[in-house]
Amino acid sequence: MKKIVLASKSPDRSGLLERLGIPFDIFITNVDEKKFKIEFSDATELVKELAKAKAEFAKNNISDNGLDKIIIAADTVVEIDGEIIGKALNEEEAFEILKKLMSKTHKLITGIAVTQLKNPKVIIDSDTTYVDFLELSDDEIIQYIKNEEWKGRAGAYSINDKASVFIYKINGSSSNVIGLPMHKLFEILKKEFKINLFQLMS
Amino acid sequence: MKKIVLASKSPDRSGLLERLGIPFDIFITNVDEKKFKIEFSDATELVKELAKAKAEFAKNNISDNGLDKIIIAADTVVEIDGEIIGKALNEEEAFEILKKLMSKTHKLITGIAVTQLKNPKVIIDSDTTYVDFLELSDDEIIQYIKNEEWKGRAGAYSINDKASVFIYKINGSSSNVIGLPMHKLFEILKKEFKINLFQLMS
Repeated sequence: MKKIVLASKSPDRSGLLERLGIPFDIFITNVDEKKFKIEFSDATELVKELAKAKAEFAKNNISDNGLDKIIIAADTVVEIDGEIIGKALNEEEAFEILKKLMSKTHKLITGIAVTQLKNPKVIIDSDTTYVDFLELSDDEIIQYIKNEEWKGRAGAYSINDKASVFIYKINGSSSNVIGLPMHKLFEILKKEFKINLFQLMS
Repeated sequence: MKKIVLASKSPDRSGLLERLGIPFDIFITNVDEKKFKIEFSDATELVKELAKAKAEFAKNNISDNGLDKIIIAADTVVEIDGEIIGKALNEEEAFEILKKLMSKTHKLITGIAVTQLKNPKVIIDSDTTYVDFLELSDDEIIQYIKNEEWKGRAGAYSINDKASVFIYKINGSSSNVIGLPMHKLFEILKKEFKINLFQLMS
């Protein structure tokens, strides 16, 4: 029996798979993200390497329990003017990030890694979506921050939730902005692992 | 006290407001859509006129109950090659629509109308998002259709659900693809009705 393992603790990624009716287990990885951030200054390279490291950590640390386990890992950052932006640590940082993102188009980049427990193959890919915000007043940014949606999210916003009122345009995949480019996952599973994602949906 | 009335029976529109923590009532309108489709052949004009008619129907048929009621109505269609595509009536029609939409970029157009019970003002606007599908095989389209997600949805798909696996790119607002352009609603309420949508969110 095939079993998806999501090597991510992001509730947004879990939420995506849940909405699609795909059963999965969560496996929390232990990867030193700081080390990667020092080593890789290019945003796309960084998220690909982090996704790969998380997938490999999961692969090396879970048991099969007689199941054909497919491991999916991902990492998401925001990039603006060549600067990599991750998660805000507090309200002040969330404010600074959102203020900066309101000034021009930014990129939302997700790295994705897919592997299978008894298969040496590890497929790594990435997806980029361009995102445009309306320009909010400082008061409005503060009102948005008060609802705590910024917590734990790259770029301090959640497109599927309250941030939808100030995201007037994206160019690229919308599931990628949530943190998991579903079309990439669909294609990787089909082409590289002969798995039909539709058949895993209930 | 302000109260949002959503003049729409679409669960996707309700779902958007619910995710944002905006309390609202639903009012089902009775508008002869067929008559409008004969009268208006331009997709943007059609959805704007339908949204306006729904908002006005609601305005004329609900009581205030001592509340400051803000009425929101919307209508969504898909347009491809100048052809207006609404909801599929059966699986065969859903298949034909999806097959057609896979051939090239299509437009998702939503008309939105906002009014207030004791205010003659009716603001009408529209939003267009360009959507690109991966090319699925006929078998894959049939697998997608089997889950019934196509029912009741313009263009026979739902971007936030299983269709996310074959939507690789959108250009425009993602909430618009769900059926309610939240950034337009936010701006209309702010500029035309002096209402701050953030303050209605819980």
